[in-house]
Amino acid sequence: MDLGFSWQSLRVELERMATAVAWEAAKPLVIEEVEVAPPQKNEVRLKILFTSLCHTDVYFWEAKGQTPVFPRIFGHEAGGIVESVGEGVTDLQPGDHVLPVFTGECKECRHCKSEESNMCDLLRINTDRGVMINDGQTRFSINGKPIYHFVGTSTFSEYTVVHVGCVVKINPAAPLDKVCLLSCGISTGLGATLNVAKPTKGQSVAIFGLGAVGLAAAEGARLAGASRIIGVDLNPSRFNEGRAFVVVSAKKFGCTEFVNPKDHDKPVQERLIYAFNAQVIAEMTDGGVDRSVECTGSIQAMISAFECVHDGWGVAVLVGVPNKDDAFKTHPMNLLNERTLKGTFFGNYKPRTDLPAVVEKYMNKELELEKFITHSVPFSEINKAFEYMLQGESLRCIIRMDG
Amino acid sequence: MDLGFSWQSLRVELERMATAVAWEAAKPLVIEEVEVAPPQKNEVRLKILFTSLCHTDVYFWEAKGQTPVFPRIFGHEAGGIVESVGEGVTDLQPGDHVLPVFTGECKECRHCKSEESNMCDLLRINTDRGVMINDGQTRFSINGKPIYHFVGTSTFSEYTVVHVGCVVKINPAAPLDKVCLLSCGISTGLGATLNVAKPTKGQSVAIFGLGAVGLAAAEGARLAGASRIIGVDLNPSRFNEGRAFVVVSAKKFGCTEFVNPKDHDKPVQERLIYAFNAQVIAEMTDGGVDRSVECTGSIQAMISAFECVHDGWGVAVLVGVPNKDDAFKTHPMNLLNERTLKGTFFGNYKPRTDLPAVVEKYMNKELELEKFITHSVPFSEINKAFEYMLQGESLRCIIRMDG
Ligand SMILES: NC(=O)c1ccc[n+]([C@@H]2O[C@H](COP(=O)([O-])OP(=O)(O)OC[C@H]3O[C@@H](n4cnc5c(N)ncnc54)[C@H](O)[C@@H]3O)[C@@H](O)[C@H]2O)c1
Ligand SMILES: NC(=O)c1ccc[n+]([C@@H]2O[C@H](COP(=O)([O-])OP(=O)(O)OC[C@H]3O[C@@H](n4cnc5c(N)ncnc54)[C@H](O)[C@@H]3O)[C@@H](O)[C@H]2O)c1
Ligand SMILES: [Zn+2]
Ligand SMILES: [Zn+2]
Ligand SMILES: [Zn+2]
Ligand SMILES: [Zn+2]
Repeated sequence: MDLGFSWQSLRVELERMATAVAWEAAKPLVIEEVEVAPPQKNEVRLKILFTSLCHTDVYFWEAKGQTPVFPRIFGHEAGGIVESVGEGVTDLQPGDHVLPVFTGECKECRHCKSEESNMCDLLRINTDRGVMINDGQTRFSINGKPIYHFVGTSTFSEYTVVHVGCVVKINPAAPLDKVCLLSCGISTGLGATLNVAKPTKGQSVAIFGLGAVGLAAAEGARLAGASRIIGVDLNPSRFNEGRAFVVVSAKKFGCTEFVNPKDHDKPVQERLIYAFNAQVIAEMTDGGVDRSVECTGSIQAMISAFECVHDGWGVAVLVGVPNKDDAFKTHPMNLLNERTLKGTFFGNYKPRTDLPAVVEKYMNKELELEKFITHSVPFSEINKAFEYMLQGESLRCIIRMDG
Repeated sequence: MDLGFSWQSLRVELERMATAVAWEAAKPLVIEEVEVAPPQKNEVRLKILFTSLCHTDVYFWEAKGQTPVFPRIFGHEAGGIVESVGEGVTDLQPGDHVLPVFTGECKECRHCKSEESNMCDLLRINTDRGVMINDGQTRFSINGKPIYHFVGTSTFSEYTVVHVGCVVKINPAAPLDKVCLLSCGISTGLGATLNVAKPTKGQSVAIFGLGAVGLAAAEGARLAGASRIIGVDLNPSRFNEGRAFVVVSAKKFGCTEFVNPKDHDKPVQERLIYAFNAQVIAEMTDGGVDRSVECTGSIQAMISAFECVHDGWGVAVLVGVPNKDDAFKTHPMNLLNERTLKGTFFGNYKPRTDLPAVVEKYMNKELELEKFITHSVPFSEINKAFEYMLQGESLRCIIRMDG
């Protein structure tokens, strides 16, 4: 891939470094010149080339159901190049093509050594921490005033500093403007189905939430050979092309059927929606789907996704990021009836170990990424990406850092 | 096994048939002469020789958190002999030694054909139904007045009528006064660990509730090679010998450590107990146990059992029968952190397919049943079995039908 410049020239650009700062909750980001300190021990400084917006950024920027940490630099889905490395970093060097990931892999803790977990003790996602773990300080500042990090990545910045355990070295031939999507949403959805829900060939799968994460989960179901993929969303533009706000046909992603809880003459209170979802799906599938994957962040959808799986063998997987004060609530008999409930971060992929192979799936054309990209904006217009997502118009909007 | 009589003589005894009837919730059972109709299509009439009391009987007899269905004949843990068979019954004949089971196996539905489920569509447990499925009528009556069945077994009776799919033919050499325990509690606990929680060698397991079901779950953990088996109970007599009411040392069942939420200077409100359990266990085990099995029926213990498993890989299994109005409640982040929550009936054993092999485990001395039998009473003293259980004095009390 020709990036149009050499990594040797990167240091110069640091002088005129642009970053999108969230000064306050729910206020448009402001492009600022921010100082980015050099990487410390086990840290890497990256030049970000492409980043995109995931709904998790939006929740913490809105800070409605989440702890407010401001001023902050959001962004965690991105692709870039190593600019410099700190002390002790041996397996990365300037010029490497990389994906930063919000949940890291130290390769030494019980989780990293376990075959089942990707919840690294040292580097697992921590949404409330705004500092680096090495010294508890930020690497971003404006005139000495610290600007906080987000999930250890803060990719809405021309340069960022990331712990080496959160950096995945990938095939330099992979186009960063596409594979940047694998650094969060697409891997999360795909892995939630392939690694956690694990439908077997011919099974039925319900997907709650048809954003990029949910549609990637649907893609996983298609790859696994599911016979029916039932998409559930409140936003009708997710189902069919040809309506207002239409950005996507979920059919392109393998969905075979759709349920919109709002398409019915029932009160649309959240509570009713949830009981209703599970019931409609049970009726469509003779008792429930074999697998479900929730990708909405709505607690009602989480409960619904659990209650709509078949008793005896059904498995429900939660992926959406809940509000701080949400409670998952169900009658214990729904569990006794031999349903399984699980949750996952980053689709249970161990980022450094597993992600290079997911990138190769794209390179081999087993996995299409283009269809998830509905918009693209220059960095200076980053706030548009927020609008597209809030209006349910976009799946992924690529933000070009050179713009 | 010499039963001291031949099955040919059974029919005569039907004339002076004794049954323990629960006329009202929470009132002592009354031994009555009850008429037991002949078995209909796909039904079998059994002579019960030994039965025992499981906590599930007690809940529905108390009918505090459960639907009251009275007058009713309780009992579902038992061993007996086929007395006569109804139309269409070909794989059982008079004289066969059998265990009746509260959850059946038709061998034809999707669940019976699935490798994962034992929740037979036709014959799964139904605690509110008091009649036979063939004609919606009872087979028990006193002067024409119907007396209701319980979970299709009603073993507190010299004779009972059971659907053939709920009857397991076993090795006639197996002593029915011991293997009767396998018809519910011991198989349930054992299977919950071996078939559902599936600890691997060296893992840690917490067991909530050290009644017969929980101690059988502990036995399963021991057989699986668990390194630590942590017992949790509110009743201190479950842990150590040498105190008042002492009936059992959980150590005999493989438990290596104990937690009694009451042994601490904290308010013993249920809510606090539950948060506390999970925290104490997390501290004892560097973040949580690998597996937990809940065998209490308390919703607080269920939540606690879930929250005490390690993130990343922990699996919690619910076995206790909840109240009608209970709600299982947890923060969804506990799931996202890669914990798994499941529930099971009858330890996921398919009764007719799998139980004969569990009986053989006892015959081969792989499994000890004697240690679960703490009391034995003649049928005329059946109410004592209820007292022993309510006072937490017994594990299993064998009720001898000939007494
Ligand atoms: N666990 C993880 O590792 C992880 C990683 C990335 C994203 N996420 C989470 O996954 C979720 C999806 O992210 P995204 O970027 O695809 O978001 P998105 O906004 O693009 O898509 C979410 C979709 O869910 C739909 N929706 C919302 N509430 C619903 C309800 N009650 N019922 C049915 N549909 C509903 C919306 O209409 C929308 O189409 C978010 O909660 C995000 O925070 C989790
Ligand atoms: N799922 C199934 O297939 C199935 C089958 C049989 C029994 N059960 C259920 O299993 C449970 C156990 O049955 P059992 O016959 O062993 O009962 P039991 O009364 O002999 O044992 C229950 C134990 O749990 C303890 N306990 C109660 N509340 C507790 C709490 N909050 N924390 C810790 N310990 C607590 C009691 O002190 C007692 O020692 C019951 O709920 C029963 O209905 C379920
Ligand atoms: Zn994300
Ligand atoms: Zn680690
Ligand atoms: Zn029982
Ligand atoms: Zn069946």
